[in-house]
Amino acid sequence: MGQDVDVTLKHTTVVLSTDGRDEQNETLAVEVPYKVALNDKNIGASMVLETGLEAFGVGFLFGQGYIQTAEQVKEVLVCNQGRIAVYADVDEADEPKEVIITSGCGGTGKISREMLEGAFDPLQEATITMDEVSEFIRSVLHGSDLGAETHCVHGCGLWAHGKMQAFYEDVGRHNAVDKIIGAILLGRVPTDGAVYTTGRLTSDMVLKCARMGIPIVMSRTSPSSLGLAIARRAGVTLVGYARPGRLNVFNAPERIKQG
Amino acid sequence: MGQDVDVTLKHTTVVLSTDGRDEQNETLAVEVPYKVALNDKNIGASMVLETGLEAFGVGFLFGQGYIQTAEQVKEVLVCNQGRIAVYADVDEADEPKEVIITSGCGGTGKISREMLEGAFDPLQEATITMDEVSEFIRSVLHGSDLGAETHCVHGCGLWAHGKMQAFYEDVGRHNAVDKIIGAILLGRVPTDGAVYTTGRLTSDMVLKCARMGIPIVMSRTSPSSLGLAIARRAGVTLVGYARPGRLNVFNAPERIKQG
Repeated sequence: MGQDVDVTLKHTTVVLSTDGRDEQNETLAVEVPYKVALNDKNIGASMVLETGLEAFGVGFLFGQGYIQTAEQVKEVLVCNQGRIAVYADVDEADEPKEVIITSGCGGTGKISREMLEGAFDPLQEATITMDEVSEFIRSVLHGSDLGAETHCVHGCGLWAHGKMQAFYEDVGRHNAVDKIIGAILLGRVPTDGAVYTTGRLTSDMVLKCARMGIPIVMSRTSPSSLGLAIARRAGVTLVGYARPGRLNVFNAPERIKQG
Repeated sequence: MGQDVDVTLKHTTVVLSTDGRDEQNETLAVEVPYKVALNDKNIGASMVLETGLEAFGVGFLFGQGYIQTAEQVKEVLVCNQGRIAVYADVDEADEPKEVIITSGCGGTGKISREMLEGAFDPLQEATITMDEVSEFIRSVLHGSDLGAETHCVHGCGLWAHGKMQAFYEDVGRHNAVDKIIGAILLGRVPTDGAVYTTGRLTSDMVLKCARMGIPIVMSRTSPSSLGLAIARRAGVTLVGYARPGRLNVFNAPERIKQG
Protein backbone atom coordinates (compact mmCIF):
# COMPACT_ATOMS: atom_id res chain seq x y z
CA MET A 1 0.00 0.00 0.00
CA GLY A 2 2.94 2.36 0.55
CA GLN A 3 4.66 4.28 -2.18
CA ASP A 4 7.78 2.47 -3.27
CA VAL A 5 9.42 5.38 -5.08
CA ASP A 6 8.87 9.07 -5.72
CA VAL A 7 5.94 9.11 -8.12
CA THR A 8 5.84 12.85 -8.75
CA LEU A 9 7.84 15.31 -10.79
CA LYS A 10 8.04 19.10 -10.42
CA HIS A 11 7.71 21.35 -13.43
CA THR A 12 7.56 25.13 -13.80
CA THR A 13 4.76 26.14 -16.13
CA VAL A 14 3.98 29.43 -17.84
CA VAL A 15 0.57 30.74 -16.81
CA LEU A 16 -1.01 32.84 -19.55
CA SER A 17 -4.05 34.86 -18.63
CA THR A 18 -5.81 38.07 -19.50
CA ASP A 19 -3.55 39.64 -16.83
CA GLY A 20 -0.42 38.64 -18.72
CA ARG A 21 2.23 36.04 -18.04
CA ASP A 22 3.27 34.38 -14.81
CA GLU A 23 5.01 31.22 -13.66
CA GLN A 24 3.75 28.44 -11.43
CA ASN A 25 5.14 25.21 -10.02
CA GLU A 26 3.20 22.11 -10.92
CA THR A 27 3.41 18.55 -9.68
CA LEU A 28 2.99 15.81 -12.28
CA ALA A 29 2.23 12.16 -11.72
CA VAL A 30 5.07 10.00 -13.03
CA GLU A 31 3.87 7.36 -15.43
CA VAL A 32 6.27 4.51 -16.22
CA PRO A 33 5.91 1.61 -18.67
CA TYR A 34 6.01 -1.80 -16.96
CA LYS A 35 5.97 -5.18 -18.63
CA VAL A 36 4.03 -7.97 -16.97
CA ALA A 37 5.27 -11.52 -17.47
CA LEU A 38 3.54 -14.75 -16.51
CA ASN A 39 5.90 -17.67 -15.89
CA ASP A 40 8.63 -15.76 -17.76
CA LYS A 41 6.49 -15.15 -20.82
CA ASN A 42 5.75 -11.47 -21.54
CA ILE A 43 1.99 -10.97 -21.59
CA GLY A 44 1.70 -7.23 -21.96
CA ALA A 45 2.74 -3.90 -20.62
CA SER A 46 1.06 -0.89 -19.18
CA MET A 47 1.84 2.62 -18.11
CA VAL A 48 1.60 2.66 -14.33
CA LEU A 49 2.19 4.73 -11.24
CA GLU A 50 5.01 2.93 -9.44
CA THR A 51 3.12 1.86 -6.33
CA GLY A 52 1.65 -1.50 -5.39
CA LEU A 53 3.40 -3.17 -8.29
CA GLU A 54 3.16 -6.77 -7.04
CA ALA A 55 -0.57 -6.37 -6.65
CA PHE A 56 -0.76 -4.65 -10.02
CA GLY A 57 1.01 -7.48 -11.82
CA VAL A 58 -1.36 -10.09 -10.43
CA GLY A 59 -4.49 -7.96 -10.92
CA PHE A 60 -3.43 -7.17 -14.49
CA LEU A 61 -3.17 -10.85 -15.34
CA PHE A 62 -6.56 -11.49 -13.74
CA GLY A 63 -8.09 -8.60 -15.70
CA GLN A 64 -6.74 -10.04 -18.91
CA GLY A 65 -8.04 -13.50 -18.11
CA TYR A 66 -4.74 -15.33 -17.48
CA ILE A 67 -5.23 -15.91 -13.75
CA GLN A 68 -8.53 -16.92 -12.17
CA THR A 69 -7.92 -17.71 -8.48
CA ALA A 70 -5.69 -16.85 -5.53
CA GLU A 71 -4.56 -20.48 -5.33
CA GLN A 72 -2.88 -20.19 -8.73
CA VAL A 73 -0.53 -17.37 -7.67
CA LYS A 74 2.88 -18.58 -6.45
CA GLU A 75 5.32 -15.67 -6.48
CA VAL A 76 5.74 -12.13 -7.77
CA LEU A 77 9.08 -10.44 -8.49
CA VAL A 78 9.23 -6.74 -9.28
CA CYS A 79 12.26 -5.47 -11.15
CA ASN A 80 12.46 -1.69 -10.93
CA GLN A 81 13.79 -1.59 -14.46
CA GLY A 82 10.21 -2.02 -15.60
CA ARG A 83 9.18 -5.65 -15.30
CA ILE A 84 6.81 -7.52 -13.02
CA ALA A 85 7.26 -11.28 -13.13
CA VAL A 86 4.32 -13.32 -11.84
CA TYR A 87 4.65 -17.06 -11.33
CA ALA A 88 1.39 -18.98 -11.26
CA ASP A 89 -0.08 -22.43 -11.86
CA VAL A 90 -2.02 -21.79 -15.04
CA ASP A 91 -2.98 -23.85 -18.02
CA GLU A 92 -2.05 -22.29 -21.37
CA ALA A 93 -5.28 -23.63 -22.84
CA ASP A 94 -7.17 -21.23 -20.56
CA GLU A 95 -5.69 -18.18 -22.25
CA PRO A 96 -8.24 -15.61 -23.38
CA LYS A 97 -9.31 -15.82 -26.99
CA GLU A 98 -10.66 -12.84 -28.90
CA VAL A 99 -10.04 -9.67 -26.97
CA ILE A 100 -11.88 -6.38 -26.82
CA ILE A 101 -9.84 -3.34 -25.95
CA THR A 102 -11.83 -1.39 -23.46
CA SER A 103 -13.06 2.15 -23.23
CA GLY A 104 -11.79 2.62 -19.77
CA CYS A 105 -9.83 5.40 -18.27
CA GLY A 106 -7.08 3.09 -17.32
CA GLY A 107 -4.60 0.81 -18.50
CA THR A 108 -4.98 -2.82 -18.70
CA GLY A 109 -7.71 -2.39 -21.19
CA LYS A 110 -8.33 -5.83 -22.65
CA ILE A 111 -11.25 -8.12 -21.97
CA SER A 112 -12.40 -11.10 -23.95
CA ARG A 113 -15.84 -11.51 -25.46
CA GLU A 114 -16.03 -14.74 -23.47
CA MET A 115 -15.64 -12.87 -20.19
CA LEU A 116 -18.21 -10.32 -21.26
CA GLU A 117 -20.85 -12.84 -22.24
CA GLY A 118 -20.15 -15.71 -19.86
CA ALA A 119 -22.02 -16.60 -16.67
CA PHE A 120 -20.83 -15.38 -13.28
CA ASP A 121 -20.02 -17.45 -10.23
CA PRO A 122 -21.98 -16.42 -7.13
CA LEU A 123 -20.66 -13.29 -5.45
CA GLN A 124 -19.31 -13.15 -1.92
CA GLU A 125 -21.94 -11.98 0.54
CA ALA A 126 -21.60 -8.66 2.36
CA THR A 127 -23.62 -5.68 3.48
CA ILE A 128 -22.45 -2.18 4.32
CA THR A 129 -24.10 0.60 6.31
CA MET A 130 -24.54 4.18 5.14
CA ASP A 131 -22.19 5.29 7.94
CA GLU A 132 -19.53 2.85 6.82
CA VAL A 133 -19.88 4.05 3.25
CA SER A 134 -19.38 7.66 4.35
CA GLU A 135 -16.22 6.78 6.25
CA PHE A 136 -15.00 4.66 3.34
CA ILE A 137 -15.47 7.42 0.76
CA ARG A 138 -13.66 9.94 2.97
CA SER A 139 -10.82 7.48 3.51
CA VAL A 140 -10.30 7.01 -0.23
CA LEU A 141 -10.62 10.69 -1.11
CA HIS A 142 -8.15 11.64 1.65
CA GLY A 143 -6.03 8.53 1.19
CA SER A 144 -3.15 10.61 -0.15
CA ASP A 145 -2.32 14.09 -1.43
CA LEU A 146 -1.38 12.80 -4.84
CA GLY A 147 -4.78 13.31 -6.45
CA ALA A 148 -5.06 16.90 -5.28
CA GLU A 149 -1.45 17.63 -6.25
CA THR A 150 -1.41 16.11 -9.72
CA HIS A 151 -5.07 15.83 -10.83
CA CYS A 152 -3.76 12.87 -12.77
CA VAL A 153 -4.42 9.79 -10.65
CA HIS A 154 -7.43 7.71 -9.73
CA GLY A 155 -7.88 6.25 -6.27
CA CYS A 156 -9.51 2.96 -5.37
CA GLY A 157 -10.23 1.41 -1.98
CA LEU A 158 -11.53 -1.85 -0.58
CA TRP A 159 -13.74 -1.85 2.53
CA ALA A 160 -14.53 -5.06 4.36
CA HIS A 161 -15.28 -6.19 7.93
CA GLY A 162 -15.76 -2.63 9.17
CA LYS A 163 -12.61 -0.95 7.85
CA MET A 164 -10.70 0.11 4.75
CA GLN A 165 -8.49 -2.84 3.93
CA ALA A 166 -6.60 -1.50 0.93
CA PHE A 167 -6.07 1.77 -0.93
CA TYR A 168 -4.24 2.23 -4.22
CA GLU A 169 -3.74 4.94 -6.79
CA ASP A 170 -2.69 4.92 -10.41
CA VAL A 171 -2.61 7.06 -13.54
CA GLY A 172 -5.25 4.70 -14.92
CA ARG A 173 -8.52 3.97 -13.15
CA HIS A 174 -8.25 0.35 -14.26
CA ASN A 175 -4.80 -0.03 -12.85
CA ALA A 176 -6.00 1.18 -9.45
CA VAL A 177 -8.74 -1.47 -9.47
CA ASP A 178 -6.26 -4.07 -10.71
CA LYS A 179 -4.08 -3.31 -7.68
CA ILE A 180 -7.05 -3.96 -5.37
CA ILE A 181 -7.85 -7.22 -7.17
CA GLY A 182 -4.20 -8.21 -7.07
CA ALA A 183 -4.12 -7.61 -3.30
CA ILE A 184 -7.14 -9.95 -2.98
CA LEU A 185 -5.45 -12.60 -5.11
CA LEU A 186 -2.26 -12.27 -3.04
CA GLY A 187 -4.35 -13.08 0.05
CA ARG A 188 -3.68 -9.70 1.62
CA VAL A 189 -7.28 -8.51 1.85
CA PRO A 190 -10.72 -10.16 1.85
CA THR A 191 -13.14 -10.29 -1.11
CA ASP A 192 -16.41 -9.94 0.80
CA GLY A 193 -16.64 -6.18 0.85
CA ALA A 194 -17.05 -3.05 -1.21
CA VAL A 195 -14.88 -1.32 -3.78
CA TYR A 196 -15.00 2.46 -4.19
CA THR A 197 -13.29 4.09 -7.16
CA THR A 198 -12.91 7.69 -8.25
CA GLY A 199 -13.22 6.50 -11.85
CA ARG A 200 -16.18 5.75 -14.06
CA LEU A 201 -17.73 2.30 -14.01
CA THR A 202 -17.52 1.22 -17.61
CA SER A 203 -18.02 -2.42 -18.54
CA ASP A 204 -14.49 -3.56 -17.87
CA MET A 205 -14.37 -2.00 -14.41
CA VAL A 206 -17.56 -3.74 -13.26
CA LEU A 207 -16.64 -6.96 -15.04
CA LYS A 208 -13.39 -7.54 -13.21
CA CYS A 209 -14.99 -6.85 -9.82
CA ALA A 210 -17.88 -9.21 -10.64
CA ARG A 211 -15.48 -11.94 -11.81
CA MET A 212 -13.57 -11.52 -8.55
CA GLY A 213 -16.82 -11.99 -6.60
CA ILE A 214 -16.85 -8.52 -5.02
CA PRO A 215 -20.52 -7.86 -4.14
CA ILE A 216 -20.56 -4.04 -3.88
CA VAL A 217 -19.00 -1.64 -6.42
CA MET A 218 -19.20 2.12 -5.95
CA SER A 219 -17.93 5.14 -7.82
CA ARG A 220 -17.61 8.87 -7.25
CA THR A 221 -18.99 9.22 -10.76
CA SER A 222 -21.16 7.33 -13.24
CA PRO A 223 -21.60 3.84 -14.67
CA SER A 224 -22.01 3.27 -18.39
CA SER A 225 -24.87 1.25 -19.90
CA LEU A 226 -22.79 -1.89 -20.16
CA GLY A 227 -21.33 -1.42 -16.68
CA LEU A 228 -24.90 -1.49 -15.41
CA ALA A 229 -25.83 -4.46 -17.62
CA ILE A 230 -22.97 -6.52 -16.21
CA ALA A 231 -23.87 -5.54 -12.63
CA ARG A 232 -27.45 -6.71 -13.24
CA ARG A 233 -26.36 -10.02 -14.75
CA ALA A 234 -23.88 -10.70 -11.96
CA GLY A 235 -26.08 -9.33 -9.16
CA VAL A 236 -23.50 -6.73 -8.10
CA THR A 237 -24.68 -3.77 -6.01
CA LEU A 238 -23.78 -0.84 -8.25
CA VAL A 239 -23.57 2.66 -6.82
CA GLY A 240 -22.85 5.83 -8.78
CA TYR A 241 -22.26 9.41 -7.63
CA ALA A 242 -21.45 8.05 -4.18
CA ARG A 243 -21.13 10.84 -1.59
CA PRO A 244 -20.98 10.60 2.18
CA GLY A 245 -24.65 10.40 3.18
CA ARG A 246 -26.04 10.07 -0.36
CA LEU A 247 -25.82 7.15 -2.78
CA ASN A 248 -27.39 6.66 -6.15
CA VAL A 249 -27.92 2.92 -6.39
CA PHE A 250 -28.25 1.53 -9.90
CA ASN A 251 -28.62 -2.12 -8.91
CA ALA A 252 -29.23 -4.32 -5.87
CA PRO A 253 -29.73 -1.71 -3.12
CA GLU A 254 -30.49 -4.42 -0.53
CA ARG A 255 -26.82 -4.74 0.46
CA ILE A 256 -26.77 -1.16 1.74
CA LYS A 257 -28.30 -0.68 5.18
CA GLN A 258 -29.39 2.47 6.99
CA GLY A 259 -27.33 3.36 10.05
CA MET B 1 -20.02 14.87 -36.22
CA GLY B 2 -23.72 14.14 -35.68
CA GLN B 3 -25.02 11.36 -33.53
CA ASP B 4 -25.88 8.36 -35.66
CA VAL B 5 -28.01 6.56 -33.11
CA ASP B 6 -29.42 7.08 -29.64
CA VAL B 7 -26.40 6.83 -27.40
CA THR B 8 -28.18 7.12 -24.07
CA LEU B 9 -30.27 4.85 -21.90
CA LYS B 10 -32.69 5.79 -19.13
CA HIS B 11 -32.59 4.00 -15.80
CA THR B 12 -34.46 4.53 -12.54
CA THR B 13 -32.11 4.44 -9.60
CA VAL B 14 -32.72 4.15 -5.88
CA VAL B 15 -31.35 7.14 -4.01
CA LEU B 16 -30.33 6.25 -0.46
CA SER B 17 -29.60 9.11 1.90
CA THR B 18 -29.78 10.02 5.54
CA ASP B 19 -33.32 11.21 4.71
CA GLY B 20 -34.36 7.74 3.58
CA ARG B 21 -35.09 6.28 0.20
CA ASP B 22 -36.14 7.96 -3.03
CA GLU B 23 -36.07 7.26 -6.75
CA GLN B 24 -34.42 9.21 -9.53
CA ASN B 25 -34.16 8.94 -13.30
CA GLU B 26 -30.64 8.69 -14.64
CA THR B 27 -29.25 8.87 -18.15
CA LEU B 28 -26.42 6.49 -19.00
CA ALA B 29 -24.02 6.63 -21.91
CA VAL B 30 -24.38 3.56 -24.09
CA GLU B 31 -21.10 1.79 -24.64
CA VAL B 32 -20.97 -0.77 -27.47
CA PRO B 33 -18.15 -3.10 -28.55
CA TYR B 34 -16.94 -2.45 -32.11
CA LYS B 35 -14.38 -4.42 -34.03
CA VAL B 36 -12.01 -2.56 -36.31
CA ALA B 37 -10.73 -4.36 -39.40
CA LEU B 38 -8.00 -3.26 -41.79
CA ASN B 39 -8.34 -4.66 -45.30
CA ASP B 40 -10.71 -7.32 -43.94
CA LYS B 41 -8.33 -8.45 -41.21
CA ASN B 42 -9.59 -7.88 -37.66
CA ILE B 43 -7.08 -5.71 -35.82
CA GLY B 44 -8.82 -5.12 -32.53
CA ALA B 45 -11.97 -3.98 -30.87
CA SER B 46 -12.98 -1.27 -28.49
CA MET B 47 -15.94 -0.15 -26.45
CA VAL B 48 -17.21 3.02 -28.08
CA LEU B 49 -19.97 5.58 -28.07
CA GLU B 50 -21.72 5.06 -31.41
CA THR B 51 -20.91 8.41 -33.01
CA GLY B 52 -18.26 9.34 -35.56
CA LEU B 53 -17.53 5.70 -36.24
CA GLU B 54 -15.80 6.13 -39.62
CA ALA B 55 -13.42 8.62 -38.07
CA PHE B 56 -12.99 6.37 -35.04
CA GLY B 57 -12.00 3.37 -37.16
CA VAL B 58 -9.33 5.30 -39.00
CA GLY B 59 -8.04 7.08 -35.89
CA PHE B 60 -7.92 3.79 -33.99
CA LEU B 61 -5.71 2.24 -36.67
CA PHE B 62 -3.47 5.31 -36.64
CA GLY B 63 -3.22 5.17 -32.85
CA GLN B 64 -2.19 1.53 -33.04
CA GLY B 65 0.40 2.23 -35.70
CA TYR B 66 -1.23 0.52 -38.69
CA ILE B 67 -1.95 3.66 -40.69
CA GLN B 68 0.45 6.59 -40.99
CA THR B 69 -0.95 9.05 -43.54
CA ALA B 70 -4.19 10.32 -45.06
CA GLU B 71 -3.05 9.15 -48.49
CA GLN B 72 -3.17 5.52 -47.33
CA VAL B 73 -6.88 5.61 -46.44
CA LYS B 74 -9.15 4.44 -49.26
CA GLU B 75 -12.59 3.60 -47.84
CA VAL B 76 -14.41 3.03 -44.56
CA LEU B 77 -17.54 0.91 -44.13
CA VAL B 78 -19.44 0.92 -40.84
CA CYS B 79 -21.68 -2.04 -40.10
CA ASN B 80 -24.02 -1.22 -37.25
CA GLN B 81 -23.73 -4.79 -36.02
CA GLY B 82 -20.42 -3.78 -34.51
CA ARG B 83 -17.73 -3.67 -37.16
CA ILE B 84 -15.80 -0.86 -38.83
CA ALA B 85 -13.97 -1.95 -41.97
CA VAL B 86 -11.16 0.33 -43.08
CA TYR B 87 -9.48 -0.19 -46.45
CA ALA B 88 -6.03 1.32 -46.80
CA ASP B 89 -2.77 0.99 -48.74
CA VAL B 90 -0.52 -0.33 -46.02
CA ASP B 91 2.47 -2.60 -45.92
CA GLU B 92 2.19 -5.49 -43.48
CA ALA B 93 5.88 -5.11 -42.67
CA ASP B 94 5.05 -1.74 -41.08
CA GLU B 95 2.89 -3.34 -38.40
CA PRO B 96 3.75 -2.29 -34.86
CA LYS B 97 6.01 -4.64 -32.94
CA GLU B 98 6.06 -4.83 -29.16
CA VAL B 99 3.09 -3.02 -27.74
CA ILE B 100 2.54 -1.20 -24.48
CA ILE B 101 -1.00 -1.05 -23.20
CA THR B 102 -1.57 2.46 -22.05
CA SER B 103 -2.77 4.04 -18.86
CA GLY B 104 -5.23 6.20 -20.59
CA CYS B 105 -8.81 6.88 -19.81
CA GLY B 106 -9.93 5.57 -23.11
CA GLY B 107 -10.05 2.75 -25.33
CA THR B 108 -7.60 2.14 -28.00
CA GLY B 109 -4.90 1.75 -25.46
CA LYS B 110 -1.94 0.26 -27.30
CA ILE B 111 1.23 2.00 -28.34
CA SER B 112 4.48 0.47 -29.40
CA ARG B 113 7.81 1.13 -27.72
CA GLU B 114 9.01 2.20 -31.16
CA MET B 115 6.44 4.98 -31.32
CA LEU B 116 7.30 6.07 -27.81
CA GLU B 117 11.02 6.28 -28.39
CA GLY B 118 11.23 7.23 -32.06
CA ALA B 119 11.91 10.66 -33.53
CA PHE B 120 9.06 12.94 -34.57
CA ASP B 121 8.48 14.51 -37.94
CA PRO B 122 8.16 18.32 -37.84
CA LEU B 123 4.78 19.53 -36.60
CA GLN B 124 2.36 21.63 -38.61
CA GLU B 125 2.70 25.33 -37.82
CA ALA B 126 -0.09 27.23 -36.10
CA THR B 127 -0.71 29.85 -33.47
CA ILE B 128 -3.86 30.56 -31.50
CA THR B 129 -4.95 33.64 -29.56
CA MET B 130 -6.22 33.66 -25.99
CA ASP B 131 -9.63 34.80 -27.27
CA GLU B 132 -9.78 31.92 -29.72
CA VAL B 133 -8.84 29.49 -26.97
CA SER B 134 -11.67 30.80 -24.78
CA GLU B 135 -14.21 30.39 -27.56
CA PHE B 136 -12.82 26.94 -28.37
CA ILE B 137 -13.05 25.67 -24.80
CA ARG B 138 -16.64 26.93 -24.46
CA SER B 139 -17.54 25.27 -27.78
CA VAL B 140 -16.25 21.90 -26.62
CA LEU B 141 -17.75 22.08 -23.14
CA HIS B 142 -21.12 23.10 -24.57
CA GLY B 143 -20.79 20.94 -27.67
CA SER B 144 -23.56 18.64 -26.47
CA ASP B 145 -25.63 17.83 -23.40
CA LEU B 146 -24.31 14.30 -23.21
CA GLY B 147 -21.48 15.02 -20.77
CA ALA B 148 -23.75 16.84 -18.32
CA GLU B 149 -26.44 14.17 -18.65
CA THR B 150 -24.31 11.06 -18.29
CA HIS B 151 -21.04 12.17 -16.61
CA CYS B 152 -19.61 9.30 -18.59
CA VAL B 153 -18.19 10.76 -21.79
CA HIS B 154 -15.16 12.78 -22.75
CA GLY B 155 -15.32 15.52 -25.35
CA CYS B 156 -12.60 16.52 -27.79
CA GLY B 157 -12.47 19.33 -30.33
CA LEU B 158 -10.20 20.56 -33.10
CA TRP B 159 -9.77 24.29 -33.70
CA ALA B 160 -8.06 25.59 -36.84
CA HIS B 161 -8.23 28.63 -39.10
CA GLY B 162 -10.35 30.61 -36.63
CA LYS B 163 -13.10 28.12 -35.86
CA MET B 164 -13.92 24.75 -34.30
CA GLN B 165 -13.60 22.27 -37.14
CA ALA B 166 -14.62 19.06 -35.38
CA PHE B 167 -16.13 17.91 -32.10
CA TYR B 168 -16.50 14.33 -30.90
CA GLU B 169 -17.42 12.52 -27.72
CA ASP B 170 -16.81 9.03 -26.46
CA VAL B 171 -16.90 6.90 -23.33
CA GLY B 172 -13.10 6.81 -23.60
CA ARG B 173 -10.95 9.92 -23.76
CA HIS B 174 -8.70 8.17 -26.26
CA ASN B 175 -11.54 7.26 -28.51
CA ALA B 176 -12.64 10.91 -28.67
CA VAL B 177 -9.12 11.93 -29.75
CA ASP B 178 -9.02 9.01 -32.20
CA LYS B 179 -12.20 10.36 -33.81
CA ILE B 180 -10.52 13.77 -34.28
CA ILE B 181 -7.42 12.14 -35.76
CA GLY B 182 -9.58 9.97 -37.99
CA ALA B 183 -11.39 13.06 -39.27
CA ILE B 184 -7.99 14.56 -40.16
CA LEU B 185 -6.91 11.37 -41.94
CA LEU B 186 -10.22 11.31 -43.84
CA GLY B 187 -9.40 14.80 -45.12
CA ARG B 188 -12.40 16.36 -43.38
CA VAL B 189 -10.49 18.80 -41.17
CA PRO B 190 -7.03 20.40 -41.19
CA THR B 191 -4.08 19.36 -39.03
CA ASP B 192 -2.60 22.81 -38.39
CA GLY B 193 -4.56 23.71 -35.30
CA ALA B 194 -5.25 22.92 -31.68
CA VAL B 195 -6.85 19.98 -29.93
CA TYR B 196 -8.73 20.46 -26.65
CA THR B 197 -9.79 17.44 -24.63
CA THR B 198 -11.68 17.06 -21.38
CA GLY B 199 -9.42 14.10 -20.56
CA ARG B 200 -5.99 13.84 -19.01
CA LEU B 201 -2.91 14.11 -21.23
CA THR B 202 -1.11 10.86 -20.51
CA SER B 203 1.66 9.69 -22.82
CA ASP B 204 -0.55 8.00 -25.37
CA MET B 205 -2.82 11.02 -25.75
CA VAL B 206 0.06 13.41 -26.48
CA LEU B 207 1.88 10.82 -28.59
CA LYS B 208 -0.88 10.35 -31.14
CA CYS B 209 -1.37 14.10 -31.53
CA ALA B 210 2.40 14.62 -31.97
CA ARG B 211 2.62 11.78 -34.51
CA MET B 212 -0.26 13.40 -36.42
CA GLY B 213 1.65 16.72 -36.46
CA ILE B 214 -0.89 18.68 -34.39
CA PRO B 215 1.11 21.57 -32.88
CA ILE B 216 -1.11 22.56 -29.91
CA VAL B 217 -2.64 20.13 -27.41
CA MET B 218 -4.78 21.35 -24.54
CA SER B 219 -6.71 19.73 -21.73
CA ARG B 220 -9.26 20.74 -19.12
CA THR B 221 -7.12 18.77 -16.71
CA SER B 222 -3.54 17.63 -16.25
CA PRO B 223 -0.70 16.04 -18.22
CA SER B 224 1.32 13.17 -16.81
CA SER B 225 5.12 13.19 -16.65
CA LEU B 226 5.47 11.18 -19.84
CA GLY B 227 2.82 13.23 -21.62
CA LEU B 228 5.00 16.26 -20.92
CA ALA B 229 8.20 14.44 -21.91
CA ILE B 230 6.72 13.55 -25.31
CA ALA B 231 5.48 17.11 -25.83
CA ARG B 232 9.00 18.41 -25.13
CA ARG B 233 10.64 15.94 -27.51
CA ALA B 234 8.15 16.65 -30.28
CA GLY B 235 7.93 20.40 -29.64
CA VAL B 236 4.17 20.31 -29.01
CA THR B 237 2.58 23.23 -27.16
CA LEU B 238 1.11 21.50 -24.11
CA VAL B 239 -1.55 23.22 -22.04
CA GLY B 240 -3.11 21.87 -18.87
CA TYR B 241 -6.01 23.16 -16.75
CA ALA B 242 -7.14 25.20 -19.74
CA ARG B 243 -9.93 27.64 -18.81
CA PRO B 244 -11.33 30.55 -20.81
CA GLY B 245 -8.89 33.37 -20.05
CA ARG B 246 -6.35 31.24 -18.15
CA LEU B 247 -3.96 28.61 -19.46
CA ASN B 248 -1.26 26.69 -17.70
CA VAL B 249 1.35 26.08 -20.39
CA PHE B 250 3.68 23.15 -19.75
CA ASN B 251 5.64 23.44 -23.00
CA ALA B 252 6.18 25.79 -25.95
CA PRO B 253 4.03 28.80 -24.94
CA GLU B 254 5.14 30.76 -28.01
CA ARG B 255 2.26 29.43 -30.12
CA ILE B 256 -0.28 31.13 -27.86
CA LYS B 257 -0.72 34.84 -28.48
CA GLN B 258 -2.38 37.53 -26.38
CA GLY B 259 -5.55 39.00 -27.87
